[in-house]
Amino acid sequence: MSKDEMGAILRKYDMKSPVTNNDLSDPMEFNLMFSTQIGPTGLVKGFLRPETAQGIFVNFKRLLEFNQGKLPFAAAQIGNSFRNEISPRSGLIRVREFTMAEIEHFCDPNLKEHPKFDDIKDTPMTFYSACNQMDGKSPAQMTIGEAVKTGLVANETLGYYMARIHKFLTTVGIKFDCLRFRQHMNNEMAHYACDCWDAECLTSYGWVECVGCADRSAYDLNQHMNATGVRMVAEKRLPEPKTVNVSEVITNKQTLGKTFKKDAKTITEALAKLSISEVEGVEKSSLKDTISVRHSTKTMHVEEIIPSVIEPSFGIGRILYSLLEQNFNTREGDDQRCYFSLPPVIAPLKCSILPLSNNQDFTPFVKKLSSSLTKDEISHKVDDSSGSIGRRYARTDEISIPYGITVDFDTLKEPHSVTLRERDSMKQVRVPFDEVSDVVKQLASGRRTWESVLQKYPLFEQQEASAK
Amino acid sequence: MSKDEMGAILRKYDMKSPVTNNDLSDPMEFNLMFSTQIGPTGLVKGFLRPETAQGIFVNFKRLLEFNQGKLPFAAAQIGNSFRNEISPRSGLIRVREFTMAEIEHFCDPNLKEHPKFDDIKDTPMTFYSACNQMDGKSPAQMTIGEAVKTGLVANETLGYYMARIHKFLTTVGIKFDCLRFRQHMNNEMAHYACDCWDAECLTSYGWVECVGCADRSAYDLNQHMNATGVRMVAEKRLPEPKTVNVSEVITNKQTLGKTFKKDAKTITEALAKLSISEVEGVEKSSLKDTISVRHSTKTMHVEEIIPSVIEPSFGIGRILYSLLEQNFNTREGDDQRCYFSLPPVIAPLKCSILPLSNNQDFTPFVKKLSSSLTKDEISHKVDDSSGSIGRRYARTDEISIPYGITVDFDTLKEPHSVTLRERDSMKQVRVPFDEVSDVVKQLASGRRTWESVLQKYPLFEQQEASAK
Repeated sequence: MSKDEMGAILRKYDMKSPVTNNDLSDPMEFNLMFSTQIGPTGLVKGFLRPETAQGIFVNFKRLLEFNQGKLPFAAAQIGNSFRNEISPRSGLIRVREFTMAEIEHFCDPNLKEHPKFDDIKDTPMTFYSACNQMDGKSPAQMTIGEAVKTGLVANETLGYYMARIHKFLTTVGIKFDCLRFRQHMNNEMAHYACDCWDAECLTSYGWVECVGCADRSAYDLNQHMNATGVRMVAEKRLPEPKTVNVSEVITNKQTLGKTFKKDAKTITEALAKLSISEVEGVEKSSLKDTISVRHSTKTMHVEEIIPSVIEPSFGIGRILYSLLEQNFNTREGDDQRCYFSLPPVIAPLKCSILPLSNNQDFTPFVKKLSSSLTKDEISHKVDDSSGSIGRRYARTDEISIPYGITVDFDTLKEPHSVTLRERDSMKQVRVPFDEVSDVVKQLASGRRTWESVLQKYPLFEQQEASAK
Repeated sequence: MSKDEMGAILRKYDMKSPVTNNDLSDPMEFNLMFSTQIGPTGLVKGFLRPETAQGIFVNFKRLLEFNQGKLPFAAAQIGNSFRNEISPRSGLIRVREFTMAEIEHFCDPNLKEHPKFDDIKDTPMTFYSACNQMDGKSPAQMTIGEAVKTGLVANETLGYYMARIHKFLTTVGIKFDCLRFRQHMNNEMAHYACDCWDAECLTSYGWVECVGCADRSAYDLNQHMNATGVRMVAEKRLPEPKTVNVSEVITNKQTLGKTFKKDAKTITEALAKLSISEVEGVEKSSLKDTISVRHSTKTMHVEEIIPSVIEPSFGIGRILYSLLEQNFNTREGDDQRCYFSLPPVIAPLKCSILPLSNNQDFTPFVKKLSSSLTKDEISHKVDDSSGSIGRRYARTDEISIPYGITVDFDTLKEPHSVTLRERDSMKQVRVPFDEVSDVVKQLASGRRTWESVLQKYPLFEQQEASAK
C-alpha cells in the first residue's frame, strides 16, 4: 500500500486519533535511520548505524582467520547506535542515541552444545515461555539445565549465554525477583530466528527489555553473502575424505564474446553457478558449440558450512536505568534520607575517607590512607568538608559509596585504628589502621564479604548522627 | 568575503590548482559538522558533535556541586566525535569518526599551582618551544620542573598534565625518542588560549599531534554564560569579609510598562547590568521619574570567580596508530618474521598456553593453567593447533602476546614445570608449574620485571624452531 493509498483510506473512513479524536495528518515517509551527507559535495549519503552487530559480520572472515579457521568463536563489540525514534521517552529507556554491547558467537549449526554449559547448568532463573504467555499463565522458575533439557530453550549455547546474562545482571545489582527471561512469541520473533529470549528488568515503567539473546541461525552471514558475493563460510574437516563427481562448463571465450557481446560476462557467471544436472542439460542444448563440459572427480577433505550465530545484545542505558531504580532506597522511618545500594564491584567510588573534624592531626592519617588506596587502584573520595560526620555519611550514601573510613581521635592513639562503615547496614567496625586498606580492597573486589569483616573486627557502636 | 565574491576573484585572476594546473570549481559552502534531521517531521535539524568537551561545560554547575562547590576539580569523558573531513587519509590519522578522551580541569585563575606537581617535577621531556620553532632551532630536553620554573610552560597545572600525558604515552608504548611536546605558535594558538602544547608522536607520516594540552582560560564557560545567561561561576571565600557599596535601580514597573510597552523588559534587564557609576548617571537623567535608585552597603563573604580550564584532549585512534607503528618490529636477519612489542600492560592477551604437541597427557596441565589464569583475570589464549611450537610462537608474536607458557614432556615429570618465554628477547626460563601463573600475573600487571624472573629461574636453552 502506497502512502497515497493509505491516505485515501484514512479519508474514506474519516479515521480519527483513537485517543484525542483529532484529525489525522496525511501519512508521511519516515526512516528510522538518521541520514547525513558525507564529504564536500554532499552527494554521498550516509546513515548512522542502527545497531553495532553488522561490523562484526562484515569482519567475519578475518575473525575466523584469527581463530585459525576453527569454530566456535565469538566476537564482542560496544558502541553507540542511533535510531530516529518518533517519540523518545521514559528517561534512558527509549532514546535516539544509545550504547549497545553485542556478542556474536559463531558455531557449527549442528554442534550447539557448549563445553562450559556444565559450569552454569544449575543456575536458577525465571522463564516466561511463549506458551505460558499464550495461555495467560505466569512465568516459571527452573534451572537453565532443566530449561535446555526439556527443550524450552533451544540449545546449550543459547542457554549458556542466557545464564551468563543472568549472572552478569545479578552481579551488577539487578534483583533476582525483578528479572525474568521472556521468550519471543512466534508472531514477534524475526522470521530467521530459531529461538529468542529477552532478559527483562522490572521498573516503574513495567518489565523493560534490557538484553536480547537470540539464535539468529545463519541469517546475517547469508544476507551479506547474497549482497556481496563474498563466501562467508567456515571449513569443517570431514570424518573421512569423500569423492564427488564434478561437472563444469568450459566456455570458449572468443566465440561467446562474439555471439553475446556485453552479455557474455553475465552468461559466464550464470553458467558457473549451475548444478550438475543443469550442466548436463546445457551439454545437450543449442549452446553446445560455444561451450563444452568437463566431467571429473574431486576428493573432498572438508565441507563448507555457514555458521549459526547466537547473539546476546545488551542495551547499556536500559540496564543502567533499571540498576539505579532497583537500587534506590530510603532509610527506614526517614524517606528524605536516600541511598543507592549498588554492589561494591560497580560502585564508581569504593570508599570514602572522612576525618572526624578539621583537626590538623588527622591529615597525615588521611593522606597515608589515600595513597595506600590509590596504590591498590581503589577509587575513593576524601571528604574533609566541614559537615557533621552524619551529614557526610549521608552524602556518600547518596552516591552509593559502599565503604567509609573515619579517622577520629582514637586513630591518633597507639595502636592506630579507624572505623569502617558499610553503607546498606550502616554498621561500623573498628579496624587497625595498617589493615584497613587491604580489607577495603578485598571487599571492593568481591573477594571478601562484609559478614566476614563483622566476624573478625569489633563492632563500633557509636550512634550515627542524623543527617538533617 | 562572500562565496560569490571569492568566485569572482578566482575568475578575475584566472587562478588554477597549484598542483595540477586544472581549473578550479566555484567556491561552495561546506560545514565541517555532519547534519541530520531529528524526529518524524524532519524539521528539527541536529548535528553530530565535533568534540566531546562541551558536554562537560554544559554540566559545569552540577559537577561543581558534586565537588561541594570547591575548586579545583576535573571531569573526564570519552566518546565518539564526528567531523566531515574534506579528505580523510593516512589510516587512523585523519578520519571522519573518531574516539576522543578529554579531561577538563577547572581551577581558580589565580591559583594554577598543583599539589602533586612535586611528584612529577623531575620527569625529563622533550620540548619544542614556539621560539625554537621560529628560530629554526631543534627541540630541547629538560625536566617539566625546569620548564615551568623558567616560564616556558605557563603554570604548574598545565605542566602537571603534560607530565602525566608523557607518562601515559610512554607507559602504553610510545618511545621516548619518538615523542615531543610542541608549543603552539602565536599565529596558530586559539585566541583565548594562554598556552597550548601538543604531544606529537613520530610516525612514517611525520610528527603527528596525538594529545593536545591547553590552558583555555575561562573562554568556554564565558561563551556558555553569554549564550544562555546561566551563571557558570564558583564562589571563593574571601580572606576577610568585605563591605561594598551597592547601588541598584528600582523601577516603577507600572510606569515603565505604560511608557515603554514591550521594550520595558529589555530596559529592566539593561538597568540591572549597570555599574555603580552608570547607576549614578541614571539617577540624574530624564528617567528619574520612572525609576529610583537605592544605595546600600553589603557585606561580602565570598567572591565569584569564573574558573580557568586546563584541557588535555586525547585522540585515541592517533595514539593507537602511533603505538602500532612504533612497536612493529622484525626479527634480526628475518624480515618475514614480525612482532609487535606492545608493553604487557596494554597487550590485549597477556599470555599464551601452548602444549608442545597434541599428546593427550598435556591436556589436564593446559586446562589447569587456563583456569588459574582466568581466575586471576589474566587474558590468555590456548593454542593447541597442530603447528610446530616455533610457528605457534611466531603467531603469538604477531599479535603481541608478551608471555608464552609451553607444556612439554618435562611438565609430565615430577616436580612439574613449564617453560616461560618472553616475546621481545625470545628468552625462556623453566618455572615450577605451581608458580607460573602467579609469575605471569605479576609480569602482566607490571609488578615484576622480566629481568627479575631471569635472575630467579634457570634459563631454558632449547633452540626455537624456525617459524617458516
